[in-house]
Amino acid sequence: MKATPRSGCAINAAVEAFGDRWTLVVLRDMIFGGKRYFRELLTGSEEGIASNVLADRIARLVDSGLLTRAEARRGQRARYSLTEPAIQLVPVMVALGSWGLRHRETTPRLAARARLLEDGGPELWDRFMDELRVLHLGSPDPHPERPSAVAALRDAAAPAPDR
Amino acid sequence: MKATPRSGCAINAAVEAFGDRWTLVVLRDMIFGGKRYFRELLTGSEEGIASNVLADRIARLVDSGLLTRAEARRGQRARYSLTEPAIQLVPVMVALGSWGLRHRETTPRLAARARLLEDGGPELWDRFMDELRVLHLGSPDPHPERPSAVAALRDAAAPAPDR
Repeated sequence: MKATPRSGCAINAAVEAFGDRWTLVVLRDMIFGGKRYFRELLTGSEEGIASNVLADRIARLVDSGLLTRAEARRGQRARYSLTEPAIQLVPVMVALGSWGLRHRETTPRLAARARLLEDGGPELWDRFMDELRVLHLGSPDPHPERPSAVAALRDAAAPAPDR
Repeated sequence: MKATPRSGCAINAAVEAFGDRWTLVVLRDMIFGGKRYFRELLTGSEEGIASNVLADRIARLVDSGLLTRAEARRGQRARYSLTEPAIQLVPVMVALGSWGLRHRETTPRLAARARLLEDGGPELWDRFMDELRVLHLGSPDPHPERPSAVAALRDAAAPAPDR
């Protein structure tokens, strides 16, 4: 059920696929926050996404081929995975984060992740996308010896520990 | 009248500032299509933006500091200019276009622009942003001898001539 885009413009087609604010928040939390379950996405949301909005956006993302839903057995929660097109949104997220860092107010903790991504450049993004393919698509890790980009990015945005 | 973002995340802050689909269409037509007037944006819209939606999005963009409106004299139309933060959206637009090119259906004519931007890399984007600063901010052109990126991008997306 892919909606027909209103024009054949590549920018517009991208925005129609995931340009809604809450859609991007869901994708961001799955890509950078490692969230895979409805409840994690709901309760861990910095922006306070509403339950019905989350359900709607997840359904749309599945329909448009950006997420897949693993059929849950009775009593188990459904787990969501990023698809290859969703994983390839990493450079888009980086560009968005770099812009937000410069032109909007951000908190130090959350800005740290955007800065790390910007500083790491395409090499870090490629590494990160390879790791997402391992976690979400079951691909083999082409460079298992390299330090984990997933861990570095998660640590950068982690709340400061209590002292 | 900048709305307070719902979190301090740089990605979310960026999406809240211009993440609406129609807002991005307006910015795209000003950045890549050279459109400066309400009527140009309305009648030249590939996606068929409605007049009331266009008026609303322009007003929001002015409020959030992405566009400025030149006061028109009596009987003249108001002209809009991109601000420096709006010009710095070029890399975001490139990332969106590259993704749309790969993962969504696009028409050859409009995809040509996305491909040119991708192939040109950061050097072309910087040249393009310098030219936008000349056109919208009145900045001096730091490299007037270089071939025009604005013209190359406009030509790439121009309709094919009649034969």
